[in-house]
Amino acid sequence: MRNLLFFGVVFLLFSFGKKENGNIIKVNNQEELKSAIKNAVAGEEIVLANGVWKDVQIKFYGKGTKGAPIVLRAETAGKVTIEGVSDLKIGGTYLEVRGLYFKNGYTPSNTVIDFHIDSKTIANNCKVYDCVIEDFTQLNRNKEDHWIEFWGRHNQLDHCYITGKSNSGPTILVALKGNEHINNYHQITNNHFGPRPRKGGPHGETLQIGDSNTSMAPSYTNVANNLFERCDGEVEIISNKSNNNEYRNNIFYKCEGSLVLRHGNYCTIDGNMFIGDDNSEFMGGIRVINTGHLITNNYFYNIKGKEFRSALAVMNGVPKSPQNRYNQVTDVVVAYNTFLDCKTPWQFSVGANMDKSDVLPAQEIRSARPERMIMANNIIFNHVADEFPIKAYDKVDGVLFKNNSMNGANKSEVKDDGLKTENLAMFKLSEWLYVPTVDQKEVYAGFEFENIKQDVFSNSRATTNGMGAIVLPVDKSKGAINKKAYGAHWFSDETVYETPKTIRVASENELTAALAKATSGTTIELKKGIYRIAASLIIDKKITIKSKDQKNRATVEYSGKDNTSAFLMGAKGNLTLENIVLKGGNGQHAFATKEKEMFSAYNLKVKNTEISDFDCVLNAYKDSFADTISIDNTVIKKCKRGLKLADENDDLGEYNAEFVYIRNSKFENIQNNILDYYRGGYDESTIGGNLVFQNNTVVNCGKEEKSGVLIKTTGIVNVEISKNSFLNNTIKFIAILWGEKNQEPKENSIKNSGEFKIEQNLKQKMMY
Amino acid sequence: MRNLLFFGVVFLLFSFGKKENGNIIKVNNQEELKSAIKNAVAGEEIVLANGVWKDVQIKFYGKGTKGAPIVLRAETAGKVTIEGVSDLKIGGTYLEVRGLYFKNGYTPSNTVIDFHIDSKTIANNCKVYDCVIEDFTQLNRNKEDHWIEFWGRHNQLDHCYITGKSNSGPTILVALKGNEHINNYHQITNNHFGPRPRKGGPHGETLQIGDSNTSMAPSYTNVANNLFERCDGEVEIISNKSNNNEYRNNIFYKCEGSLVLRHGNYCTIDGNMFIGDDNSEFMGGIRVINTGHLITNNYFYNIKGKEFRSALAVMNGVPKSPQNRYNQVTDVVVAYNTFLDCKTPWQFSVGANMDKSDVLPAQEIRSARPERMIMANNIIFNHVADEFPIKAYDKVDGVLFKNNSMNGANKSEVKDDGLKTENLAMFKLSEWLYVPTVDQKEVYAGFEFENIKQDVFSNSRATTNGMGAIVLPVDKSKGAINKKAYGAHWFSDETVYETPKTIRVASENELTAALAKATSGTTIELKKGIYRIAASLIIDKKITIKSKDQKNRATVEYSGKDNTSAFLMGAKGNLTLENIVLKGGNGQHAFATKEKEMFSAYNLKVKNTEISDFDCVLNAYKDSFADTISIDNTVIKKCKRGLKLADENDDLGEYNAEFVYIRNSKFENIQNNILDYYRGGYDESTIGGNLVFQNNTVVNCGKEEKSGVLIKTTGIVNVEISKNSFLNNTIKFIAILWGEKNQEPKENSIKNSGEFKIEQNLKQKMMY
Repeated sequence: MRNLLFFGVVFLLFSFGKKENGNIIKVNNQEELKSAIKNAVAGEEIVLANGVWKDVQIKFYGKGTKGAPIVLRAETAGKVTIEGVSDLKIGGTYLEVRGLYFKNGYTPSNTVIDFHIDSKTIANNCKVYDCVIEDFTQLNRNKEDHWIEFWGRHNQLDHCYITGKSNSGPTILVALKGNEHINNYHQITNNHFGPRPRKGGPHGETLQIGDSNTSMAPSYTNVANNLFERCDGEVEIISNKSNNNEYRNNIFYKCEGSLVLRHGNYCTIDGNMFIGDDNSEFMGGIRVINTGHLITNNYFYNIKGKEFRSALAVMNGVPKSPQNRYNQVTDVVVAYNTFLDCKTPWQFSVGANMDKSDVLPAQEIRSARPERMIMANNIIFNHVADEFPIKAYDKVDGVLFKNNSMNGANKSEVKDDGLKTENLAMFKLSEWLYVPTVDQKEVYAGFEFENIKQDVFSNSRATTNGMGAIVLPVDKSKGAINKKAYGAHWFSDETVYETPKTIRVASENELTAALAKATSGTTIELKKGIYRIAASLIIDKKITIKSKDQKNRATVEYSGKDNTSAFLMGAKGNLTLENIVLKGGNGQHAFATKEKEMFSAYNLKVKNTEISDFDCVLNAYKDSFADTISIDNTVIKKCKRGLKLADENDDLGEYNAEFVYIRNSKFENIQNNILDYYRGGYDESTIGGNLVFQNNTVVNCGKEEKSGVLIKTTGIVNVEISKNSFLNNTIKFIAILWGEKNQEPKENSIKNSGEFKIEQNLKQKMMY
Repeated sequence: MRNLLFFGVVFLLFSFGKKENGNIIKVNNQEELKSAIKNAVAGEEIVLANGVWKDVQIKFYGKGTKGAPIVLRAETAGKVTIEGVSDLKIGGTYLEVRGLYFKNGYTPSNTVIDFHIDSKTIANNCKVYDCVIEDFTQLNRNKEDHWIEFWGRHNQLDHCYITGKSNSGPTILVALKGNEHINNYHQITNNHFGPRPRKGGPHGETLQIGDSNTSMAPSYTNVANNLFERCDGEVEIISNKSNNNEYRNNIFYKCEGSLVLRHGNYCTIDGNMFIGDDNSEFMGGIRVINTGHLITNNYFYNIKGKEFRSALAVMNGVPKSPQNRYNQVTDVVVAYNTFLDCKTPWQFSVGANMDKSDVLPAQEIRSARPERMIMANNIIFNHVADEFPIKAYDKVDGVLFKNNSMNGANKSEVKDDGLKTENLAMFKLSEWLYVPTVDQKEVYAGFEFENIKQDVFSNSRATTNGMGAIVLPVDKSKGAINKKAYGAHWFSDETVYETPKTIRVASENELTAALAKATSGTTIELKKGIYRIAASLIIDKKITIKSKDQKNRATVEYSGKDNTSAFLMGAKGNLTLENIVLKGGNGQHAFATKEKEMFSAYNLKVKNTEISDFDCVLNAYKDSFADTISIDNTVIKKCKRGLKLADENDDLGEYNAEFVYIRNSKFENIQNNILDYYRGGYDESTIGGNLVFQNNTVVNCGKEEKSGVLIKTTGIVNVEISKNSFLNNTIKFIAILWGEKNQEPKENSIKNSGEFKIEQNLKQKMMY
């Protein structure tokens, strides 16, 4: 009887196991889901009922087959939202997840979607398709996680939209720790990686494959046909740290970073587009380290980055480099690429620092130049001639140049028969796509160049070959990004434009009520008068607060407890304060950040305002991060200290604000420093902090500043202090600048106010 | 007309280009050869006429095809000898070399056979077959060359016999410098690597694949079915320094070294035999460093080595190791191996040296233990129980033990459920081959273990699987090494035994005449009397010189110039001096080496002899190397200094003698040190120097020794000083011993003679 039953069950399973008429099991809650997974057989579909699934930890396991996977899907794609404290772990074979929408929450583990459940239950041949992860970020930006971890082999992330990770950790990590995970041939395809905000420090990659400990492993991950849009997390959009990966036909659209071959060898970067911006020196291209990479058919447009962020940054290595530092570049081929309107796109021996052997240990000195490298059949074209298309930080003696053309004169030190100035002409196909009017046919045939069979648009090179990334003819459609081809089919990242609202207020109560009910984008206009505020005004959306009449400014008087702040910036807070007189009672702060849950960056803009009688002008707590702080045409006076952006003091490369602009303003009677902006920890690959301090007047400040420095910028990479007037400030140093980063004061007038000091090399704590 | 001629030539070439009826072109001299090569077309055979080809530098180039290679061969295999200052360089496609015999000479370049002519003319799909290279060694052992260099791809060394390299440099080097040479799939098959003598220092490998600079390259060289016999050059028989190489079914017969996975990852070592010797602790097995290796089906017999030389030495790595040091062992699988009568065959964390962080820089400290390593289905069997089969120099916490069996109790610190003591029985098939009487069937099925399909003898594991290297049944023939299967078919390495000759002499003239005409192995007997010798007796063969009557010893009085020697040792000199009284005139040496052309090691044995009135007892020059020096029952007196083996002072790991035995002898009135034996330069992977100083009496020595040390052994690894009597020696230290190497004096009697000092850690100059 039992055998018969068993036989019957097997028969049942078998007959339902086919996909065409496979079981579809709809589940409405976690218990049903758990049970359905437990009983799932090949070919079955488990359907999550539409609605909000809150605080769920899904372990999706089972054994599907190639022809009959087990599917876990939304009833309607996009209508099943996974919210709260939730995650999904996948382990087994041929499992597919479709149509889920992760939002309004974060993971309780270290992953949102994980291609393994534990070390024994690993995903192989599994797929996540048509899903969205939006802003599913930890409440504390320093709590690290990865949204998607790849383990096992042959797994795929396809047609997903991923955006808004602002906490520590690469968005996607491919793990190679163990033989089960190498030679993985994972597919990361057709995804749309939406904006990842600036993180302020390291660990903000969008994709990392391997790590330095497993960088010897063959990975064979394929990253193809994805759109990376404004992935600004850190200097590396993609951090390649293993062997044999391929990056093909991706578009990097206005991303502040580069595709970095950080560790690992023999990768292919073919047919990608790097599209930059006129206004940004942060958008980069490809940074090359290590051996045997093939960089072909890539199109670089308007990349203005330099050094680490240049269109093509070829680094110097450390001789016999430790595993986690910089191996020498050898046997790298860069062929058939086009650099259009890029600024000094080729930079060699980037990171060379032989002059610093006094201050750095030997294993930090990058003195090993590129060797056996080939640059061939590339085009550099600039509408406004760039006479220095090449920059070299060391001798260029290990690079073979063959048949490279540029349209400008080459006045750089690197000259070679293989670098020719020629009459080139380009035809504009779109805002960023220019194609040659004729193919430049005289191509160099290097070792195995016969394998470079197609151009950036997958057109064959067999019949009409030519230099650069593009062979003719080109279809006009190539000049536009078809967003529909990327990400989840049901999701659009286009936001509906709403007419900004304005609320007019005339009293404290009206002000607090308006702030509470305001939607993001609202302007609150204050009538002239005094607004006495006793509790902090919390800013966690986009709000403008201004006086109705700029000639009759409203006064906000804050009388809250000491150490609280008039304006309290929360995550995503974006405050513009305009034409206001803001007064404190000496013990409070004008602005401060929340101490917790600063999961995303805030912005603060102050214009035509007067701030006085506070302890601190801005008190930024640890873990908070401002994208941009700007203070213009503002008077700040009678405060104990100025802006404090120095609480990230673990010396791990984190810092409290990306951009700080202080212009046309006046500081008067600030007892301590007027700005303390700090970034600690040495790792040259993380770069950050930007200060513009310009056209200001600083009078009678710094009397009680113990450090003896008026404007503290330790570790901040980009600092401009110019055209200011310093008068009667009782201080030793106005600022101590970092010579190595070319910092120097410009056109300041100094009277009775200490001096600028330039330190060439900054002693910093190693981060690794 | 011209076109017609061209057509005709093409037709001719084409019709002769087939191999079946291809052109055979016999050449008699270099001009003809050069011309033949120049004109050779696919399918042609160039035949070197039998005889001696002296001082030839052959560049063999051309374009053969797969079906129609161009062949360069001996008229009769083995009857064409390439002698003098000669070499062969090969560049092109499908070129084959057959039947050549390199001897009586050396290369003027850095290779004897080279698979590339220059950086542009590289061999691909070329083959060297049925050739011999014998003693084709440089005159100076410190002049470096490689006998065979592999470049390009798909080249093969097959059925060759290679022996006698005693100069610096691996016998075979596979070069990976450049993309043209990676993924090479070279075949090194069916060769016989005959004895390579001890070199005394590094760079004595028989095979090296890659180097640390190119260790990231995928090589895919296949080393299969070779016989390595007494390849004693250095501690590494094979130095793997690249990725994806395979070592299959080779026999390592009594080789003083190991197959070392020095750099590079993901290699396969499958089905090899390591056969050791009762009397040697120098013969090793496999030393493991780096990631992802698969070590399966190997049979280890009688391996007595320890630490670096143990049957299975798994090293500790340097955390974040520099490229040329020691990467951590990770993801290594050791499965289905048999360790038979090996002494403590498994040694983990070899090289751990955390205790030396005071004396060594951080990048020398090997503290990273093996991780994610699997040891499964292995057998350890000892006829005499080894209760300590496992030795660990650090915690063993990263190794998974599964289904390993041993027949002895395991009293070592490493205990695990996966290490079981069981009743195992072995059946003797031959001197070194023991097979299990029954298969131990309970095997562990690890990740991808299903790919381990065969045993050491290529028997299938599909039907009858079992633990260890061998599954039953085993053919009896497997217990013998069939030398015919290896090396050149026409060459035998067996030497014909000749009855040793004895020549009796009674005068100086007779003695010098006898020495001149003696063949190797001859004994010269001296009648009682005084032999006054004015010129050095040159020893460049195997010679015994002794008194006819040991009770009436002959006296040899040497009256040559100061700084010359009574006996002058040349390369391959092998002197036994027995029952002789040897006297000098104070300014000469009793023994010295030649200053030049010490291309091969010498041996010196002194028995029952009295040596007096010399400057130096033995003066070994730089570049000379003694395999064994032994002094027994001998009196040495009234000399300025004793044995000087300290001229290799470049601190590059070289030294002047491998074994020095001084036993049952007496030193009296030696004014300076009695022995100066030196090895300089730190690289723990090179190990060397052996001293036994036992049962001697040392009286009134050392008075004028400036170093204050009587027996100087700086840098020598194995030192035993025991059971000696030291009396009235005016010296501070008898010897300074090296504590780290477990050196300590034993049972010596010391009276009025200074003391022993033990220095735990020796400060040495880094070699890299």
